[in-house]
Amino acid sequence: MKKIAVILSGCGVYDGAEIHETVLALYAIEKEGAAWHCFAPDIEQMHVINHLTGEETDDKRNVLVEAARIARGNIEDVAKLHVEDYDALLLPGGFGAAKNLTDFAIQGADCSINTHVAAACRAFARAGKPAGYLCIAPTIMPMIYEKDVKGTIGDDQDTANGFNALGGKHISCSVDDIVFDEKNKVLSTPAYMLAQSIIDAASGIEKLVKKLVEIA
Amino acid sequence: MKKIAVILSGCGVYDGAEIHETVLALYAIEKEGAAWHCFAPDIEQMHVINHLTGEETDDKRNVLVEAARIARGNIEDVAKLHVEDYDALLLPGGFGAAKNLTDFAIQGADCSINTHVAAACRAFARAGKPAGYLCIAPTIMPMIYEKDVKGTIGDDQDTANGFNALGGKHISCSVDDIVFDEKNKVLSTPAYMLAQSIIDAASGIEKLVKKLVEIA
Repeated sequence: MKKIAVILSGCGVYDGAEIHETVLALYAIEKEGAAWHCFAPDIEQMHVINHLTGEETDDKRNVLVEAARIARGNIEDVAKLHVEDYDALLLPGGFGAAKNLTDFAIQGADCSINTHVAAACRAFARAGKPAGYLCIAPTIMPMIYEKDVKGTIGDDQDTANGFNALGGKHISCSVDDIVFDEKNKVLSTPAYMLAQSIIDAASGIEKLVKKLVEIA
Repeated sequence: MKKIAVILSGCGVYDGAEIHETVLALYAIEKEGAAWHCFAPDIEQMHVINHLTGEETDDKRNVLVEAARIARGNIEDVAKLHVEDYDALLLPGGFGAAKNLTDFAIQGADCSINTHVAAACRAFARAGKPAGYLCIAPTIMPMIYEKDVKGTIGDDQDTANGFNALGGKHISCSVDDIVFDEKNKVLSTPAYMLAQSIIDAASGIEKLVKKLVEIA
């Protein structure tokens, strides 16, 4: 059975991993006959957003501890992700991918990336093992792959410009489709960068996961 | 388009709504051509569990605010749920259903139920509109329906005894099946009371939601 490592960035669209995208991705992995295991960085969240009001709160929360909610406790520190144990890598979106894994949401193309997340993603790239990035997570791809890596965040021009400024080559893409950089074996899909419903988000995610497991 | 009201109990299996069950249920509602809207009580959680370690923490969190994470902010206080606006009701599981909506997890058959949750559930029962309860949430059914209402929490004997002590008639059920009390128009399925995978949980939830939307 093929094994997919999944890196989460918390629990909740505005300050962590997007919950629908994560569950849809894990479900799709199982439906393709593969197994998943979750990881997250053991760091404090950039901030905590009240998801009812959209306002920032004074709370402090840990990315790994909150991500454990989506994973039902079945999760490990991403520093312990060994590429040799897995066939492919998957990163769901949510603002956490651009606030906790990197700080792209604040710093744009001048952002930095968590060192353990970078090490894990680069290990899959170096090993020639495929990876998939959902929603806003593709902004991480130019920090991992060679110049002009092809990826998509949908069609938002500001975010696409940021992707290109980081060294990537952005391709506009509809919510039910994927962009596949064959040379780098890396896939991306817009998910909630464009989705208006769970069905929308699922359409691209299921297509991406099917391809990811196929080439793993 | 049929409209389904969904009552959540937080965000996370050990102290709130089970995340996989909730997303699978919302996705299933969309796939059946219906629309969903989420609600939760505006109260403090019974407690906050660190989902990485399983330990109780000193944090205080609000059920409605945390449930908003799963609903992407698209959620209202359950006190504002008007039965005339919806065709059916759905309650996902997770310990929150037995810690925040009721305190069955601590008090067993001597438990109490949140007044707004009770009012909402009873309004659907009185209106003859169908309802579905997942996982541990069926323990709420005997507090809403007449004596001997038929429901399932899977096959856990202690929980089944609690269901019967509350006045219900427990029916053992496999994870991929549902129990339908036709007289009361109420459905239940074990989900993560028995599920060993997301596919397991989805099998019963998708069957229940299909029937729920059909009879709504």
